[in-house]
Amino acid sequence: MNDATPARRRRHGGRRTGTSRAAGPAIAQTPWRIPLNTDRPTEPLDEAGIAALHSGAMRILSEIGIEFLNDEALGHLRAAGCRIEGQTARFDPDFVMDMVGKAPAQFTITPRNPDRSVTIGGRHMTFVNVSSPPNAWDLERGKRPGDFATFREFMKLTQYFNCIHIAGGYPVEPIDVHASVRHLDCLFEKLTLTDKVAHAYSLGPERVEDVMEMVRIAGGLTHDEFDAAPRMYTNINSVSPLKHDWPMLDGAMRLARRGQPVVVTPFTLAGAMAPVTLAGAVALSLAEGLAAIALLQWIAPGCPVAIGTFTSNVDMKSGAPAFGTPEYMRATQMTGQMARHYGLPMRASGVCAANVPDGQAMWETGNSLWAAVQSGANMVYHAAGWLEGGLIASPEKFVMDCELLQQIQRYFEPALTATAEDDLAIDAIAEVGPGGHFFGCAHTQARYQNAFYQPFASDWRNFEAWAGDGGVWTVERAHRIYKRILAEFEAPPMDAEIRDELADFVARRKAQGGAPTDF
Amino acid sequence: MNDATPARRRRHGGRRTGTSRAAGPAIAQTPWRIPLNTDRPTEPLDEAGIAALHSGAMRILSEIGIEFLNDEALGHLRAAGCRIEGQTARFDPDFVMDMVGKAPAQFTITPRNPDRSVTIGGRHMTFVNVSSPPNAWDLERGKRPGDFATFREFMKLTQYFNCIHIAGGYPVEPIDVHASVRHLDCLFEKLTLTDKVAHAYSLGPERVEDVMEMVRIAGGLTHDEFDAAPRMYTNINSVSPLKHDWPMLDGAMRLARRGQPVVVTPFTLAGAMAPVTLAGAVALSLAEGLAAIALLQWIAPGCPVAIGTFTSNVDMKSGAPAFGTPEYMRATQMTGQMARHYGLPMRASGVCAANVPDGQAMWETGNSLWAAVQSGANMVYHAAGWLEGGLIASPEKFVMDCELLQQIQRYFEPALTATAEDDLAIDAIAEVGPGGHFFGCAHTQARYQNAFYQPFASDWRNFEAWAGDGGVWTVERAHRIYKRILAEFEAPPMDAEIRDELADFVARRKAQGGAPTDF
Repeated sequence: MNDATPARRRRHGGRRTGTSRAAGPAIAQTPWRIPLNTDRPTEPLDEAGIAALHSGAMRILSEIGIEFLNDEALGHLRAAGCRIEGQTARFDPDFVMDMVGKAPAQFTITPRNPDRSVTIGGRHMTFVNVSSPPNAWDLERGKRPGDFATFREFMKLTQYFNCIHIAGGYPVEPIDVHASVRHLDCLFEKLTLTDKVAHAYSLGPERVEDVMEMVRIAGGLTHDEFDAAPRMYTNINSVSPLKHDWPMLDGAMRLARRGQPVVVTPFTLAGAMAPVTLAGAVALSLAEGLAAIALLQWIAPGCPVAIGTFTSNVDMKSGAPAFGTPEYMRATQMTGQMARHYGLPMRASGVCAANVPDGQAMWETGNSLWAAVQSGANMVYHAAGWLEGGLIASPEKFVMDCELLQQIQRYFEPALTATAEDDLAIDAIAEVGPGGHFFGCAHTQARYQNAFYQPFASDWRNFEAWAGDGGVWTVERAHRIYKRILAEFEAPPMDAEIRDELADFVARRKAQGGAPTDF
Repeated sequence: MNDATPARRRRHGGRRTGTSRAAGPAIAQTPWRIPLNTDRPTEPLDEAGIAALHSGAMRILSEIGIEFLNDEALGHLRAAGCRIEGQTARFDPDFVMDMVGKAPAQFTITPRNPDRSVTIGGRHMTFVNVSSPPNAWDLERGKRPGDFATFREFMKLTQYFNCIHIAGGYPVEPIDVHASVRHLDCLFEKLTLTDKVAHAYSLGPERVEDVMEMVRIAGGLTHDEFDAAPRMYTNINSVSPLKHDWPMLDGAMRLARRGQPVVVTPFTLAGAMAPVTLAGAVALSLAEGLAAIALLQWIAPGCPVAIGTFTSNVDMKSGAPAFGTPEYMRATQMTGQMARHYGLPMRASGVCAANVPDGQAMWETGNSLWAAVQSGANMVYHAAGWLEGGLIASPEKFVMDCELLQQIQRYFEPALTATAEDDLAIDAIAEVGPGGHFFGCAHTQARYQNAFYQPFASDWRNFEAWAGDGGVWTVERAHRIYKRILAEFEAPPMDAEIRDELADFVARRKAQGGAPTDF
């Protein structure tokens, strides 16, 4: 996997000690690893259903077309032979499929610590922290606008948990930092508090270029080394229905030209920005996603891309978005089938509409995470910490979700379903005999320490022991855990020279005024 | 499905009005229906794994043997050619497979209201209320021993929710009713407060015979009519490892002889009553289950049976049972594969180790319910209301679980994944165009009322609306819902003559002293 960490690797300094130092004693968590999803996906569509969704997406692309609010993109598409009218591009299905066929089925992103490399595609399943809520909520402080201190707390949780593989977007939007320099301060924290794969928002060329430069510096890379392999990524959303906006397209094209991955995730809420029927919402999502991917493959053939799904439905009584619903699960599974049909890596999400980390939050999030498993998703956004349809990030929810993510990782360990002679334990069964107990037998003693998953947030004691110890509910346990993690947090090591170079860059760009805020 | 409701059907009186009257205005719930599980099961075992588990179960049966603490059962097995030493029976694998081959792949149970018939087997998925906790817990009264008043509350919830198909064992053990007559009072309540399929505990011949007679009376059936088709069922547990006790075998044989279904569910906790390896625990569970099924098929060839799984693991630090774990999920899926291998209907469960209906309760229960889906389980015990590893029944948990059960039922509706021309909505997408909104278009207006699942326990409002309305967490909402349901509950109709006959039977049997309590 580490095909991309040459020359200056020694400089980042975090290679050998990062993982072990990050796992402090606050909780006993499972080690860093990228789980392989060994389950056969759940596939609600038959061949005819796949053909119908594909045909629907192609008709949208060829007959209705997609608006590209970006002249450079329109120029590329015109050169590629697409029919351009105003800002609308109509695509020949053969061209789309030719372009999609150039995308790699999987790719590896190597952050400043190459031990934290992630492969996106195939059977690999990676989890990303909650990204982009404007607000935070916790048990102590309630709901409040996001700020920089809270942003840093979530960065520490993102780094701490081994089950979180990627430091995605801002876990909360730090509104106390001016928008012109926010990306500089946030990326400095992200790149120093974590050593995981980082993300750039496609919110204007200056920001995108700054983030790429900061990732390059943090990795101790030359420009050529940066361009030689994926080091970070962006995620772009279409403006559904049928539209891609200027900054998203600009950022996507900038990354694609430098070989950095682009995840294209339409946000098609059935009944609002998409048809009320799931097949229609998924077909629209596919069309919007494939349009952007075709553009990027035309510009940079073979560049790493993934197709995302964010198809859910609204509450038709209130218009409020719903998440983790039966409809959400099926839309995710259908998108998974289509992603495999196109040979593209796929992104899904861990989501809920609940306002606090309670029962509803966990059944909705659990539904969405299991749908990600069932769909064969390779990248699961918002996998820890999301509440209120993405408007709130919560540290308690982050901890609770990580408990479930660890269980999903454990679920995929082949040992659980091994059936060798030793696993069948016939000799042990004969030895223990009717009415006996297995704890004392040699077969158990040789295996019990690692036989079963050990949770960190679940309380398995009986009611009396639990009540005698204060009767602490899950959300309160999660609150205590996150506090302990923050108290004990140690940032992963970084070479002082690199840190200085990063700080200098931030200072220089701030002095220049950062990024314009009129995009 | 209603092949078994002859002559005296008119007498039960609940046929036409039961369903509609049960759905009061406390919540808007989905109608009664038996969902068909259309998903391809998740199958972690390959062919070699299936062969290994089968071989393991057969070696346990032929080499180690199973203890049958029941001379009648041993006599039958001896007559069938099994090797009997003391109370241990060793089985020829060919005999076991011959007997298992006689069991029907599915069967229908018809309760007093034939509209509440359930089919067990094939793709049918049925849900059973929580059964057998000694204690109750709710937000107002905390934890307390089960009593008759609480038993009645759970019977009303069991009847009320259309997503609960079967009135299983006692939701709480009413310890304020003497054990000698408890079954009489409980079954009277169960058969008058509900019109769903009822269950008999196999706790001694008098109890089993009394319950069969009460079900016969409640159904307005002659003895011949009762015997002609399944009307109720029992569930028996082995005493793992390797043992079946007297009353369970006695009850199972009594029901089998009268054509009433028997669910055989070993309780193999890996690391305690079963090997620490999941393959060993599942092989042991299969051996115990198949041994009882072979006995029943020898006695009554073709009698309806199902194989249950209750394989989980203990916390190796405390010995406490764990539920809804990754290990539990995989054991359930493996058992599902083996049940299909043997052509037997399968029972699973909805379970958790949590002490209160919080986040942990829902991630553990959600994991177990989705494992039931993934395993193709036909009957899901404890699907609503279970806490503390089965030691507590909670009405709030009952309501929260039913929310998830309704979502699972909705998940299986074919409309969600339909891809006809109307579903693809290409014309609507063209009509709305880039940047438009779908709510107003004709395609949405024609469909929005039934397009999406409507929850009754989830709150999808935004934080401010939710907080302004009191900021009520899920468990408190569930508390209010269960109170409203109880306040509005109307029992399903029952012919006065039948009710009198049932009451007379109870009075007569009580006068006779009920059942002996020294079993």
